[in-house]
Amino acid sequence: MKKYRRKITALLLCFLSATALKAQSIQSPDHHLKMDFSLTKGLPAYALQLDGHAIVKPSHMGLAVKGMPALAQDFTVQKVVLDSADNSWKPVWGQTANIRNHYQEMLVCLKQKQTGRLLNIRFRLFNDGLGFRYELPIQSNLRSFTVKKELTEFVMNGDHKTFWIPGDTDSQEYNYNTSKLSEIRGLMQNKVIPTMERPPKDPATVQTALMMKSAAGEYINIHEAALVDYPAMQLRLDASNRDFHVVLADNAEGYKANLQAPCVIPWRTIIVSKKAGDILTSNITLNLNEPCKIKDTSWIKPMKYVGVWWEMITGKSSWAYSDSSNVKIGYTDYRYVKPNGKHGANTANVCKYIDFAAKNGFDAVLVEGWNIGWENWYGGTTDHPFDFLTPYPDFDLPKIEAYAKAQGVKLIMHHETAGSILNYEYHMDQAYQLMKAHGYDAVKSGYVGKITIPGETHYGQRMINHYLYAVKKAADYKIMVNAHEAVRPTGLCRTYPNLIGNESARGTEFEAFGGLSVDHTTILPFTRLIGGPMDFTPGIFENYLSAYNKNNPGRIHSTLARQLALYVTMYSPLQMAADLPETYQKYADAFQFIKEVAVDWQDTKVLEAEPGDFITIARAAKGRADWFIGSTNDENPRTSKINFDFLPKGKKYVAEIYADTRKSDFESNPMAYQIYKKIITAKSSLKIHCGAGGGYAIHVKPLK
Amino acid sequence: MKKYRRKITALLLCFLSATALKAQSIQSPDHHLKMDFSLTKGLPAYALQLDGHAIVKPSHMGLAVKGMPALAQDFTVQKVVLDSADNSWKPVWGQTANIRNHYQEMLVCLKQKQTGRLLNIRFRLFNDGLGFRYELPIQSNLRSFTVKKELTEFVMNGDHKTFWIPGDTDSQEYNYNTSKLSEIRGLMQNKVIPTMERPPKDPATVQTALMMKSAAGEYINIHEAALVDYPAMQLRLDASNRDFHVVLADNAEGYKANLQAPCVIPWRTIIVSKKAGDILTSNITLNLNEPCKIKDTSWIKPMKYVGVWWEMITGKSSWAYSDSSNVKIGYTDYRYVKPNGKHGANTANVCKYIDFAAKNGFDAVLVEGWNIGWENWYGGTTDHPFDFLTPYPDFDLPKIEAYAKAQGVKLIMHHETAGSILNYEYHMDQAYQLMKAHGYDAVKSGYVGKITIPGETHYGQRMINHYLYAVKKAADYKIMVNAHEAVRPTGLCRTYPNLIGNESARGTEFEAFGGLSVDHTTILPFTRLIGGPMDFTPGIFENYLSAYNKNNPGRIHSTLARQLALYVTMYSPLQMAADLPETYQKYADAFQFIKEVAVDWQDTKVLEAEPGDFITIARAAKGRADWFIGSTNDENPRTSKINFDFLPKGKKYVAEIYADTRKSDFESNPMAYQIYKKIITAKSSLKIHCGAGGGYAIHVKPLK
Repeated sequence: MKKYRRKITALLLCFLSATALKAQSIQSPDHHLKMDFSLTKGLPAYALQLDGHAIVKPSHMGLAVKGMPALAQDFTVQKVVLDSADNSWKPVWGQTANIRNHYQEMLVCLKQKQTGRLLNIRFRLFNDGLGFRYELPIQSNLRSFTVKKELTEFVMNGDHKTFWIPGDTDSQEYNYNTSKLSEIRGLMQNKVIPTMERPPKDPATVQTALMMKSAAGEYINIHEAALVDYPAMQLRLDASNRDFHVVLADNAEGYKANLQAPCVIPWRTIIVSKKAGDILTSNITLNLNEPCKIKDTSWIKPMKYVGVWWEMITGKSSWAYSDSSNVKIGYTDYRYVKPNGKHGANTANVCKYIDFAAKNGFDAVLVEGWNIGWENWYGGTTDHPFDFLTPYPDFDLPKIEAYAKAQGVKLIMHHETAGSILNYEYHMDQAYQLMKAHGYDAVKSGYVGKITIPGETHYGQRMINHYLYAVKKAADYKIMVNAHEAVRPTGLCRTYPNLIGNESARGTEFEAFGGLSVDHTTILPFTRLIGGPMDFTPGIFENYLSAYNKNNPGRIHSTLARQLALYVTMYSPLQMAADLPETYQKYADAFQFIKEVAVDWQDTKVLEAEPGDFITIARAAKGRADWFIGSTNDENPRTSKINFDFLPKGKKYVAEIYADTRKSDFESNPMAYQIYKKIITAKSSLKIHCGAGGGYAIHVKPLK
Repeated sequence: MKKYRRKITALLLCFLSATALKAQSIQSPDHHLKMDFSLTKGLPAYALQLDGHAIVKPSHMGLAVKGMPALAQDFTVQKVVLDSADNSWKPVWGQTANIRNHYQEMLVCLKQKQTGRLLNIRFRLFNDGLGFRYELPIQSNLRSFTVKKELTEFVMNGDHKTFWIPGDTDSQEYNYNTSKLSEIRGLMQNKVIPTMERPPKDPATVQTALMMKSAAGEYINIHEAALVDYPAMQLRLDASNRDFHVVLADNAEGYKANLQAPCVIPWRTIIVSKKAGDILTSNITLNLNEPCKIKDTSWIKPMKYVGVWWEMITGKSSWAYSDSSNVKIGYTDYRYVKPNGKHGANTANVCKYIDFAAKNGFDAVLVEGWNIGWENWYGGTTDHPFDFLTPYPDFDLPKIEAYAKAQGVKLIMHHETAGSILNYEYHMDQAYQLMKAHGYDAVKSGYVGKITIPGETHYGQRMINHYLYAVKKAADYKIMVNAHEAVRPTGLCRTYPNLIGNESARGTEFEAFGGLSVDHTTILPFTRLIGGPMDFTPGIFENYLSAYNKNNPGRIHSTLARQLALYVTMYSPLQMAADLPETYQKYADAFQFIKEVAVDWQDTKVLEAEPGDFITIARAAKGRADWFIGSTNDENPRTSKINFDFLPKGKKYVAEIYADTRKSDFESNPMAYQIYKKIITAKSSLKIHCGAGGGYAIHVKPLK
């Protein structure tokens, strides 16, 4: 696409001292969206319409700052600058090989009359939504300052159907609730809060990305982009049950953010469309992030991996080497500690996974539980729960390195911090150096438990800064990061594409810790995945966890076929085949799909989508002529009807279909599946039955 | 000295379940000191006598731990193990070339009846005092735990004369108060607390090292050794005005320390002697620290330095490059900022100091204000006040490096953290790497202002861990550390001799910020210096700060001759000649002493000493036949009478004497001095007049 950028002459308003501004508007490039900015009695507000229908009604804006008048009132407009852009860029990895960045922009420069302080608000209106942010320009009487509260509102135009999780500032690992806006407060109080460890101050507080659907059929998603040096945004409904107010995670002082002008606040985004699929393919979040800051990205590679992990999750084996609690990092020589006999990360077992990875074409093997500390790591008071440098005595680091190298398999290191970021930062350079010295190019980091800096939570400014610090330092070492329990992503992977994954939602592991809702994977792409990929760890074939550990009553809330679909519907450049090698050997025909599915994409098409109900997505593999299709649905069996008009015309393909049987049901018959083939062209269409909690996967191969 | 170590057969007590233990005693090797341990109704206590006279009366011991019964009661004695040692070791640098470590030891192993928890107390009794510490052995029902309070007492046997500073947990930069114990509370309430920023909870709280003198003429010093992973100790007098209770700096949670067994609490030390000089030469603090953990110490070198510093302290020049506050790290290109024209750390000025250092035989040049951030650094709210990597545009890092190298002069980097340890830890590796890349082997670090982790103070456990982290990481890079505003030292320089200095007391800079008491340098060696050397920055010749900055009314509370004495009386392997080169050129004859004085010592003799009144010390230069003598006194003029019997017999020496004149007086005539020579032998004695706030320095050279 031709690079195109046009700047409309800055419009200097005649009434610079006016505190009332007749609405100033911009339209999206396709004219469907319209954003109005107004200043009434000094109060700034914005509103958003889709085809003349209000999506966001006039909503106030601003920041409350400690020790000075709120930057939300008493404003005059200094100037309004209009601009636009239409260009495209290529992500290092992604759902499409090219991303178009096409918007109209309005920059409103405000001055507070009484104080002379300056606040700019920048709006970018795309065809699929709006982004806006506050910018504090450099100025004499606003230097270091403390944000007490953000005053941004999102006034909804109806009692929308909403897919939400509660406003915890330490975790997003919840099942989604589906309700009307007006039902959130009651559900929180009666159902959700009793189960929470850290309930929000106001019960009607929910997390973003927040997905809604209006009675008129508009799909609306509120989130943020480029969360840097600022707490994560949550939303609180006021008594009207229509008006969302921004809530930010507290820091230890009870404030929100310490900033210094010049600075920008993260973008607030409202993605909106009459088609649910447009929410899934929106690139607003990425487009509002800075371009890639890593010069050489040749070392950043999407990958599929297996790992010593699910066997611990199910309780078949253990992270810890011993069952003794009388051990201490820096004191105990673990060679003389009695092993418990079920330590997963032992050399022989890791080599078994390496063999399996090599034989089946996986890029890498993750090993958790390799380093000392697992006997006492959780719930302790120490700031130093883990050693990132010392393997357990049965984990032979050089031998495993050599074994993996000989088989052409990479290793993924694991760093569990247990919330002690000081401990992690202390050892980070050495830990990354150890990784590089032993051939590890990627790290899975973890932030389980309370943050050990008192008063700080996972989503406060200090932790936000830590996560990005770890990613940037990892980039210095050419290490890819997959951070679990960190803040949910906001598109920063554009700027730092070595951030190849996050968990930051309720993942497959929860099938062993209480279960996932059956509709979970029909919601996550509309919520959690708006900000970036998730290491969901799909591919669990053995539905009954008791098969691995007789004491584990856990079940997978999905059919086996749907487990395959998730490799396509849950976009990620990092995909795990999470089940055990012996299980994959048992179901080798179904496993074939996981072996073949791509992890990087040329193009993406949403074939069917309704949040909470079903999602069907087709993706073209990058550098291959193959397409892959995945479909997931909720507890209601359905018939998916798709056509293949996205394929090049006139070519023939084989569709290898991995589907539920007529009897498949996530509860009663989860492991029944069928595999069959069809010859198809761009003119073909298919009807495929999906069982309750089911779905299907298709590998579309050119016919040779 | 022959290495000698004897272990007395473990004495297994007959009454293992007894909660009362008749006092079990040990004596110092010379039998003058006696320590009694007792267990009465399950309560452990210790007492200390000197020649049969109580120094510490029976005092309770123990720890209050969160969520469990205090580890201070309900004990039985499991066993008592007696041991002794007599060996010696060579410090990398120090007041003497050899240090003897000679003690009797008693290890008391206690078990709490109700809980079964184990607590060991280890006592070491030297000829010059007692050290004891708590040790938590590994045990099943005490793993991670939180110290709420330390219950150690020091019950004094009289209303001693005491030299104290208030129990601030953010600063030791106070003048000393001299009073009876019974006067502390009143003085704190009426005089001291009104001047403090962070007064202690109980006004009768003072810092250590605490120096006392009993009516019977016993000199008593309470401090701690090997402060690692634990808050700094302070002392609180109870209503009796005799009993000291340990107070620890709070952490942000309001507790004291998070620990995991096995672990040890820092040593508590009581140095005691009838001779004041023995306090100054005691090696208890060093002996109770671990041996050196740095294998190759060849890069650790005592040094004398000059620096771009006093000119900023006096206000003649500035740390900041500009007077603009509209600058921001990471945003501003300082090349386009208007300079203020008085930035000290500019290339030409630094080169002037390098010339001066080279010409006069100094090892190094310190430069403060070289890096960006000084415009907005103080009192802001940001966690990122400084950049440790980017010089101001007028500081040409490579040019200065080359210029210094050509002249054979080392450079000392400056890292001011402004209390933001997260920011420092983020950049520490890069900052140290930058130093090494540009020839810097030493860093002066600073911790001015509030700690930016809310609720944490300079002396809490987290900061204690930070300081040591910085020193250990610096050692990895072969960098020496001189940490200002860090916790006062506790002998850790034995273990990490790259910790070549600390400030951690009111130094010479305060002559520009309110003044030093005239007797300050007669007290510091008895208090602050017990734990390790201080970068006091002596050598100020120009008594009137208005000579550099007409707006500065500051004065030096010392005669010029006493400024020379401090190079001997204030032991440090790092000594600054703090005044400006042009001033030294004006007083070249007096400056000769600074040029010649050693910084590392073969031997040390205290010739005269009385805390608060005077100190006269002679030291033999390491590797030279020269001795140096310094004498400092309070506001009372006096005649110092010394003899030279420490010199080898039969040899002749020239004593070059830098002394006050009869008219010298720190207030009325501070800059009058005289220099004269005498031929002396071991049989000689001298009387030297010292003016008010005066003193003298002598360079004793072999007669050729």
